[in-house]
Amino acid sequence: MALVVQKYGGTSMGSVERIRNVARRVAKTYDDGNDLVVIVSAMAGETNKLVALANELCEFPSEREYDVMVATGEQVSIALLAMALNSMGYKAKSYCGFQIPILTDSAFSKARIESIDDSKINEDLKNGTIIVVAGFQGIDREGNLTTLGRGGSDTSAVAVAAALKADVCEIYTDVDGVYTTDPRIVPEASKLEKISYDEMLELASLGSKVLQIRSVEFAKKYGVVVHVRSSFNDNPGTLVMKEDAEMETVLVSGISYNKDEAKVSVFRVPDKPGIAAKLLSPLANANITVDMIIQNVSHEGYTDLTFTVPKGDFKKALKIVQETATEIGASGVASDESIAKVSIVGVGMRSHSGVATKMFQTLSDEGINIQMISTSEIKISCIIDSKYTELAVRVLHEAFGLAKKDVTVE
Amino acid sequence: MALVVQKYGGTSMGSVERIRNVARRVAKTYDDGNDLVVIVSAMAGETNKLVALANELCEFPSEREYDVMVATGEQVSIALLAMALNSMGYKAKSYCGFQIPILTDSAFSKARIESIDDSKINEDLKNGTIIVVAGFQGIDREGNLTTLGRGGSDTSAVAVAAALKADVCEIYTDVDGVYTTDPRIVPEASKLEKISYDEMLELASLGSKVLQIRSVEFAKKYGVVVHVRSSFNDNPGTLVMKEDAEMETVLVSGISYNKDEAKVSVFRVPDKPGIAAKLLSPLANANITVDMIIQNVSHEGYTDLTFTVPKGDFKKALKIVQETATEIGASGVASDESIAKVSIVGVGMRSHSGVATKMFQTLSDEGINIQMISTSEIKISCIIDSKYTELAVRVLHEAFGLAKKDVTVE
Repeated sequence: MALVVQKYGGTSMGSVERIRNVARRVAKTYDDGNDLVVIVSAMAGETNKLVALANELCEFPSEREYDVMVATGEQVSIALLAMALNSMGYKAKSYCGFQIPILTDSAFSKARIESIDDSKINEDLKNGTIIVVAGFQGIDREGNLTTLGRGGSDTSAVAVAAALKADVCEIYTDVDGVYTTDPRIVPEASKLEKISYDEMLELASLGSKVLQIRSVEFAKKYGVVVHVRSSFNDNPGTLVMKEDAEMETVLVSGISYNKDEAKVSVFRVPDKPGIAAKLLSPLANANITVDMIIQNVSHEGYTDLTFTVPKGDFKKALKIVQETATEIGASGVASDESIAKVSIVGVGMRSHSGVATKMFQTLSDEGINIQMISTSEIKISCIIDSKYTELAVRVLHEAFGLAKKDVTVE
Repeated sequence: MALVVQKYGGTSMGSVERIRNVARRVAKTYDDGNDLVVIVSAMAGETNKLVALANELCEFPSEREYDVMVATGEQVSIALLAMALNSMGYKAKSYCGFQIPILTDSAFSKARIESIDDSKINEDLKNGTIIVVAGFQGIDREGNLTTLGRGGSDTSAVAVAAALKADVCEIYTDVDGVYTTDPRIVPEASKLEKISYDEMLELASLGSKVLQIRSVEFAKKYGVVVHVRSSFNDNPGTLVMKEDAEMETVLVSGISYNKDEAKVSVFRVPDKPGIAAKLLSPLANANITVDMIIQNVSHEGYTDLTFTVPKGDFKKALKIVQETATEIGASGVASDESIAKVSIVGVGMRSHSGVATKMFQTLSDEGINIQMISTSEIKISCIIDSKYTELAVRVLHEAFGLAKKDVTVE
């Protein structure tokens, strides 16, 4: 008998019929003799509907109230899944984040889980109850509702798995697992049997959207084995786990892309020590994550500074940057929302040279201009014009030989 | 400076534009120098959508989970109203029932408020914050979410007003106040300037739908003056308050009707002491309110028993009654969902005779058969075929002279 944590995403919970399907899958796992905690997301589309409502009401919704609002999506889901299980004759009980409680910090809409009280869950598990927990949400020390950001239910699931020392955390989604790249762009993309936490971190943060980055950090920190698989079939998915020797033999594991960032450039910034910090710290204070940052070589005491921010924070960021730019005497601010980031990721890169050159050459051969570059030990990212995204992903996927083995001719 | 509690119903909160309208009204009351606590319902239609979802999923949704689900409607509303007020520059803060907390018993979907902790609200009021509280919902001692039943937000409002010793509890709705009857049926219906708690109790329980009955009980118990008025204009509404001498001079204050009940008859029940209790107590245990009960004179040791239950509980009630009927040896169970209850209400009835006769004669003159009758000190109700509802209301309204004064020709 194992303790299994399962997480079902918004697509898996997207309709009454799909919720019944999830209930059947949960029931089967339970009937197989496992203790079971299920984390669910809001029904697909529901959170977007709420956000649209808030945005219709006001341009910058209060962050505290925003979280009060969007937390309802998951609350509906847990109730429906618990109802479905009850009506099938299973003991099941729903928990909102605050009822457990899942304690977070107070960074509304981007809260981080601080601790999870496992006492109520353990008590219910002992009497054979299936626990259904609302993903995405928690409560801070002052009793305010908080949410963990898009994809936060993954983090809820991994955090609950870590707190309960679960044997496995199964993340059910609408894809079969983690692919070498987005199969909608490259039909020959192949499913990875396993992937290291670090590679997954790069892929997740770069926009592969299979797992929220924080959930992978959590999994890495607590050694939670995460099994990413489809809720629509029984195929084995991809295991996200500790790096092993086999993984190192592969040069590049995957190609990812991200169209959810926007570029902000500040021109003729007086090049004094501390100027970058001065420009960027108001963004940090506003809880806006700055991703890639480029500062050009200084000319006559002035420099240009370019960085990317999430599109969701773009309006807010631009407003802040324009104020700061005036303050520090920069000549102007430009921005561009039609950019994309394309990245190659692989732990094998560490021990192989020439990977970056191959990437740049491949893009150049197609006439794709590289606007910004950033690298880490196991990834290389390029910012390009967003209209070239699909082309870039396709040619890189081919250049690094990632297509399905069964597609290559013998 | 007064402490004002305002409650806005689902129609008043029914769209972004209407929420803005509510925010402006709230802001005006605040600007006039009042301390303000606002209770809101779910946006019109939202609760019904959720209920439909649950019913699509299973026939008898678990009651605990049902409450978890429907409580989300009010949670969305408080967030949106607080956002709107914040964006207008006002300090406003939302509270779910559990955050205050509003403590209830554990009768899911029909919970009763046991106590309200006013400490957080008072603290926030002190620093000039407008408080927005979710109506309809609470939390029980075990930490389960509960809801108060349809119209429960009225009770939330009056209970909060009582707990805070507010000067007035304004119930904003989509009608101008309490009318002598439903103006959709009788266009000449006139608005009552004031009405006693007892009359309002009869009207509310009989289906006038302006105020939830429990809210009136609460108001009566704690002497809360309730002002029922429209959120779409500035007209004075109807004051629900202690009975005064003036009210007694009126024979009948209002005519109400209710199509939300269904009739259940049990035939050839062995007429032994305790048999009615035996038949009805399983319904009470299932938290189903039995309204009118008629037991006919016994023939040869057998009697027939007829009673009405809310349509929402009809399926459940019928199932229970059929089981009990078999158990006690009754010959059969019949039911009828196409009934209506029409009632006349007035404290003046106490001191006038002939009111009942006039009612029965009026209905009889139109060929309307009376199926069941029940009376109290200040009301007389008749169950009739639901197809005659509108006709019955119209003729009774005219018979008791309730039309607008300005309509009568001088």
